[in-house]
Amino acid sequence: MTTRPAVLIMQRHLGQLTPFLEGSYDVYRFWEGPPAEVEARIGAIVVAGEFELDKALIERLPNLKLVACFTSGYDRIDVEWCRARGLPVTHAPGVNHEDVADHAIGLILAARRKIVEGDRHLRAGEWTPETRILTPSLKGQKVGIVGLGLIGQAVARRAEVMRMAVRWWGPRDRPAHWPRAASVLELAKASDILVVACRVDDSNVGLISKEVIEALGPSGLLVNVSRGQVLDEAAVISALRSGALGQAALDVFTHEPADPADWADVPNTVLTPHTAGATTEAVQGMLMLMVQNLAAVFNGEPLKTPIQN
Amino acid sequence: MTTRPAVLIMQRHLGQLTPFLEGSYDVYRFWEGPPAEVEARIGAIVVAGEFELDKALIERLPNLKLVACFTSGYDRIDVEWCRARGLPVTHAPGVNHEDVADHAIGLILAARRKIVEGDRHLRAGEWTPETRILTPSLKGQKVGIVGLGLIGQAVARRAEVMRMAVRWWGPRDRPAHWPRAASVLELAKASDILVVACRVDDSNVGLISKEVIEALGPSGLLVNVSRGQVLDEAAVISALRSGALGQAALDVFTHEPADPADWADVPNTVLTPHTAGATTEAVQGMLMLMVQNLAAVFNGEPLKTPIQN
Repeated sequence: MTTRPAVLIMQRHLGQLTPFLEGSYDVYRFWEGPPAEVEARIGAIVVAGEFELDKALIERLPNLKLVACFTSGYDRIDVEWCRARGLPVTHAPGVNHEDVADHAIGLILAARRKIVEGDRHLRAGEWTPETRILTPSLKGQKVGIVGLGLIGQAVARRAEVMRMAVRWWGPRDRPAHWPRAASVLELAKASDILVVACRVDDSNVGLISKEVIEALGPSGLLVNVSRGQVLDEAAVISALRSGALGQAALDVFTHEPADPADWADVPNTVLTPHTAGATTEAVQGMLMLMVQNLAAVFNGEPLKTPIQN
Repeated sequence: MTTRPAVLIMQRHLGQLTPFLEGSYDVYRFWEGPPAEVEARIGAIVVAGEFELDKALIERLPNLKLVACFTSGYDRIDVEWCRARGLPVTHAPGVNHEDVADHAIGLILAARRKIVEGDRHLRAGEWTPETRILTPSLKGQKVGIVGLGLIGQAVARRAEVMRMAVRWWGPRDRPAHWPRAASVLELAKASDILVVACRVDDSNVGLISKEVIEALGPSGLLVNVSRGQVLDEAAVISALRSGALGQAALDVFTHEPADPADWADVPNTVLTPHTAGATTEAVQGMLMLMVQNLAAVFNGEPLKTPIQN
C-alpha cells in the first residue's frame, strides 16, 4: 500500500493542476467520484476561493489536515468554521494584484475608448468614409476606487499616469496618496468611473446598490474586478437598460460561468470570463505557494501562507 | 453679394465641422459638387492629413490662402509643393498624443489579456466550469517603441507603470530615459511587443518589413497607432496566418476604411477603426486651432500652428 499522502481537487477547472501534484501525492478529482475508501486517506483538499466548501464532505474526511485554496481570494470559504475544527486554510496572497489592475485598466480602455465595439464595427463592415467613431478622452476623468488594497493601489497608479483623478473609499481609513470619500455613495457621486477592487465578505455583499449605481449615473462606467456578489447585478442590468448607468465592464458575476442570455440585450457592456487575475505567471505563483503549503503540512512544518484573520 | 470668406471641406467625415464654421464662413463640401463659380471665392480648404491633396483642384483656386489640416498628422500632404506655391499649411499639433497613447495601451491589453476575445467567448456561451482562459502577464514584457515623439514617450510612461521594460528606436538619437536600439530590426528582435508610434514620411513607408515582423516573432505582438503605410500590411497578414507573428492590434490601415474581408480569416487580431486620436476632447482642440488659423489667415495675422519644416 502506498504511503504517499492523498490530495483531493474539488473544482473541475483546477483539474489541470493534477500533473504538478501527482509527482508527490496521490491525486483524486472530486467530480470523477473517487471511491469511498479513499476518504480516509485524503490529507488535503484543493479548492478555489470563489466556491463554497463542501462541509458535509469535509466532515467525512477523518485525516484532513489542510484546505489549500489555490487562489488569492477566499470569499466563499468559511474560514471560521474551519478554524473551529482546527483545520488550517492557506491561500495565495500577493501574486496577481498587478495583473488584476492591468485588466481593470484594460476594461476601462475597452469600454471608454470603444475597443471591443470598434473591433466589431470594423469587422461588420460598418466603417465608412462618412463615419468616424468619437470616444471620450480619459484625461481628467474621475476614477473612484472601492477598496484600496493591493489591487486598488495598483489601479490608482495606472489611472494617474493616464491623467485620471483618483479618489477611493474603503471601510477603514488608511494613509494614502489619494483622498478618501466619506462613503461609497459619495464616491460614486463624485466619479465618472467606479472600479470595484475590494475583497468580498459578509459586510459588503450588494454594496454597489441601485442607489450607488444611479449616483454613478448615465455617463458613468462601472468596472468590477472583485467578485460578482459586491454588485446588485439585477440593478446593474436594469440601470444599463434604462440608461440610468452609462456603461459596465465586468470580469466577475454573481453566478459563474455567466449565462450569456442574461446579457444578450443589455447595452454598453464589456464582459470578460473572470480572467483578470488568471495570468500564466500568476498561476505559476499560486501553484508554487500551494506546493509549499502542501509540503509543509505533510512534513509538520509551518505553513507558508495561512489565512490569519 | 456676400463678403464672407468661403471655405471648402474636402473629406466627407469632416462634414460634421460645418456647423462650427458657417457662423463665420460660407462653407462648401467638395463631395456635394459645389458650382464652378464658387472656385474663385474659396480662401481655405479644410483637409485631413491622411488624404492626398487634390492638386489639380488647388491649381484652379485663384484665391486660396490656406490649407487647413484638421488633424495632427499630415503625412499625405505635400507640404513642399504647397510651400513652392506660397501656400501655407496649418495642422493641430500636441492635442491628442496622450489619447493615442491611451489607445495603444488599450490595444496591448485587449490583445495580450484577451479582452476582445474573452468578451466574444463569454457571449458565445463558451465559458464553462472546465474552461479558464489564461493570458500572459504584462510584467517584464519588453516593449519596443518605434518613434519616441510625444506619442511614443506617452506610451513609454504608461508601459513602465505596467511593469514593462521600454526600449525605442527612431532615426535620430535624442536624450531619453529609455535605451535606444541600434535599428528597428534590433528593436524588434529584443521586443515582445512592438508599438509603432512614429510620424510617416517618404523615408519610412514599409519600415515594418517582413524581416522586422519575423524578428518580432511567433509570440510577438505588433501594435500600430501611426499610419498603415509604415507596415508592409501583406507581410503582417501572411505572418499572422503562418504563425510567424503572434498577434497584431491595429488602429490604422493601408487603405481606410479597412475592408473587413481582408481580415476575416486572419487570426489573433484586434482591429479598431482609426479611433486612437479621435476623442471628443481632441477634436475640440483641433477645431479650436483650425478656427484660430482660419481667422488669422483671413485677418492677415500670423498663423497659430503652421507646419514649419
